[in-house]
Amino acid sequence: MTSVLEYIAANRRRFVDDLCAYVRFPSVSAQPRHAADLGRCAEWIAARCRGIGLATEVHATDGNPILVARTPVVRGAPTFLVYGHYDVQPPEPFELWKSPPFEPRIAGKNLFARGASDNKGQHLAHLNAVEAYVRTGTRLPCNLVFLIEGEEEIGSGALYKFLPKHARQLRCDAVVISDNGLPSLKHPALTYALRGIAAIEVRLDGPSRDLHSGLFGGTVDNPAMALCQLLGRMRDAKGRVTVPGFYDDVKPLSRYERKQFAGLPLDAASYRRLTGAPRLFGEAGYTHEEQRTARPTFEINGLTSGYQGEGSKTIVPSWASAKITIRLVPDQQPRKVIEAVKKHLAKLCPPTVRLTIRNGHGGEPYIVSPEGPLAQASLRALEAGFGHRALLMREGGSIPIVSAFRKHLGADTLLLGLSLPDDNPHSPNEKFNLDAYAAGTRTSAHLWPLLAAASV
Amino acid sequence: MTSVLEYIAANRRRFVDDLCAYVRFPSVSAQPRHAADLGRCAEWIAARCRGIGLATEVHATDGNPILVARTPVVRGAPTFLVYGHYDVQPPEPFELWKSPPFEPRIAGKNLFARGASDNKGQHLAHLNAVEAYVRTGTRLPCNLVFLIEGEEEIGSGALYKFLPKHARQLRCDAVVISDNGLPSLKHPALTYALRGIAAIEVRLDGPSRDLHSGLFGGTVDNPAMALCQLLGRMRDAKGRVTVPGFYDDVKPLSRYERKQFAGLPLDAASYRRLTGAPRLFGEAGYTHEEQRTARPTFEINGLTSGYQGEGSKTIVPSWASAKITIRLVPDQQPRKVIEAVKKHLAKLCPPTVRLTIRNGHGGEPYIVSPEGPLAQASLRALEAGFGHRALLMREGGSIPIVSAFRKHLGADTLLLGLSLPDDNPHSPNEKFNLDAYAAGTRTSAHLWPLLAAASV
Repeated sequence: MTSVLEYIAANRRRFVDDLCAYVRFPSVSAQPRHAADLGRCAEWIAARCRGIGLATEVHATDGNPILVARTPVVRGAPTFLVYGHYDVQPPEPFELWKSPPFEPRIAGKNLFARGASDNKGQHLAHLNAVEAYVRTGTRLPCNLVFLIEGEEEIGSGALYKFLPKHARQLRCDAVVISDNGLPSLKHPALTYALRGIAAIEVRLDGPSRDLHSGLFGGTVDNPAMALCQLLGRMRDAKGRVTVPGFYDDVKPLSRYERKQFAGLPLDAASYRRLTGAPRLFGEAGYTHEEQRTARPTFEINGLTSGYQGEGSKTIVPSWASAKITIRLVPDQQPRKVIEAVKKHLAKLCPPTVRLTIRNGHGGEPYIVSPEGPLAQASLRALEAGFGHRALLMREGGSIPIVSAFRKHLGADTLLLGLSLPDDNPHSPNEKFNLDAYAAGTRTSAHLWPLLAAASV
Repeated sequence: MTSVLEYIAANRRRFVDDLCAYVRFPSVSAQPRHAADLGRCAEWIAARCRGIGLATEVHATDGNPILVARTPVVRGAPTFLVYGHYDVQPPEPFELWKSPPFEPRIAGKNLFARGASDNKGQHLAHLNAVEAYVRTGTRLPCNLVFLIEGEEEIGSGALYKFLPKHARQLRCDAVVISDNGLPSLKHPALTYALRGIAAIEVRLDGPSRDLHSGLFGGTVDNPAMALCQLLGRMRDAKGRVTVPGFYDDVKPLSRYERKQFAGLPLDAASYRRLTGAPRLFGEAGYTHEEQRTARPTFEINGLTSGYQGEGSKTIVPSWASAKITIRLVPDQQPRKVIEAVKKHLAKLCPPTVRLTIRNGHGGEPYIVSPEGPLAQASLRALEAGFGHRALLMREGGSIPIVSAFRKHLGADTLLLGLSLPDDNPHSPNEKFNLDAYAAGTRTSAHLWPLLAAASV
């Protein structure tokens, strides 16, 4: 391991040069005019893999190519899959960038470019670690498969078709993804759980058309008012969702988990600054970090009813609707929660309006045992790589591909995020911290023996 | 009076021909291409007034001309002003008309044409009655002023400037308007009260931008949810507005008024059919007719928040807003009610969102003493004209010009509607019932001696 780490330290500048070359490709998957750039970008990363001796295939798809690269086979050893994506978000609006998005600029500890942290820098760190093993002749204690796609920012359409077809070849003991964040360089963290989601649309129909509020107002229920009263009852003053059974399947947080969260550096003032809200508000009895990652929510994403133009229109609107997403935590199931919500809405809905509920998409919450060997091995790797105590954290959003990996490959995913909170992914002036890049590379070097030992 | 009524009966067909000529003008005030048609239409009705010996002036305005026509002066007698408008609503959509909107078609008892009931037929009935007096040499017991404008359907802009400037010349003892409805030919009715209105817009601001509902949902209040909870508390389960002091100035209905309403023919089944609502809903303790005309309401006219497009967008919206109109009844004052509502909203609004309330337009409710001599004289005229017992009714909407007449001319307005519930004003296939036209003409003939006697 010493020679591997020495190699990483010695090649620090060259690894940065490689990342600079990688981010020069404007591999914007959302913009068809960049299709050729995506192809060239895939070939660049394939060449990089081949250059360090990986068996590399670039699979053509209906969309952008998918790269699969394997380290030399180590018989009897476990296999880990590293997932990443070479496509990037659109760079617009250009005028907000301090330097052109596809011309890497280094300022202090940061490398500015679209894709620097999301996701080119983060998966390149893992490839750098493999290079260090290979070039120093250090035997990898496992088999590694790099799976790098080009449509993550537009829904991974090609990969969702690819996975079931290549499930056998991609079978592995665990998946490692670095495509998310850590609170600070002094707080490396393993994300061991994600929230799931259940989307519904609620609509109340009243009169057969918008009615004159003078001529008829007072004799019919107002669907907008009925919607307000109905949805208003879904959350109580303590921030709890009132749907019976809603919390039944929520796995309580252990003391160990809550202690881990307490070590994370984000305080109320940071949240207030990040959100711009006049005051924070969440479920009583939980910290902000717990509220946003480990507790379910009932959010109205949109409201529509009646007249929305300038001035006023004196109507009783014919209907009112709301878009709603429910964030789920382990072990809530989208279907079961949606049924409970529907039942409750139907029960509370007055007979003066007609209730229609349309199901939208659902995604299961995700969790890897926080005290299990894979998570603990990851923490030790992060500590070794960053030189600071690593913590466990959860994330409030969803990463749908993680469930697909569990389903098709039967493997848990370990999320070792290398992106700092001010990295601006998806925004102008995206950057990647070069210390995080180096620490991530060291983490990856430490990770494989630790994971291999934990997988036995 | 006998000769007047005989003249009206004898000229029934000619009065219909006159109305047919009048509705041929496409006097659509909302459509600039019809400006010349409006001028020609004003000249036609002016010629009609001059033809029966009225002193007639057509006043040019910034917009469409205003006609003022006076019967020969009767010294010492009271003066009544008849208001009407020669402009009409746009006829679109043409394809829904069974015959062209400006080619009058008689089918059974109905004359179909845009403007037939709103308002050409209704004020022509009054002019026909004057013709009957003049041609039969019957002395009118009062002075009559016809004030006929051409912008009622677009807000009466010119008239609002004209009124204060000509207040002296238009001074009168009462105003008579036939520009509204009656429940049926067997239920002639005087509308003695109108609801007023107060409009506000309520907005709640939360986070400084739409937030990712996964990353932040649970730590900040959701402005759409906060709006639902806030507005939902404005009306209770019995349909009462919960704002403290809201009902303080509401004049209770007298037994006499409630008895009058009870005689009106509209029942629950009719309201359900008219509104298409699954079930009727209103303030407990009042009939539907009372709810829609004599009780104040708090109506949400529109809701806006977050994402309203196809599918879902997983955000905590930055803000949510609602358009609200409050219908007022005598003696509620728009300003006072708005202050009470604002105070209540501010009191209930949680500190997790910022509340902004924007005042919109306001209009006072209107009432003429139902047991006073003018109202009672009107009822007797309606009974004589229609041959059925006349009732008192209120209307739920507002007719703003009525308050302007009270303000500038110091006169109460008597609303003797001649339009039946199926007349389709503002809709395709507008029509006017020719029996209502004849009965309205007879009512007008009876009205002047009765009103003159009541005004002494």
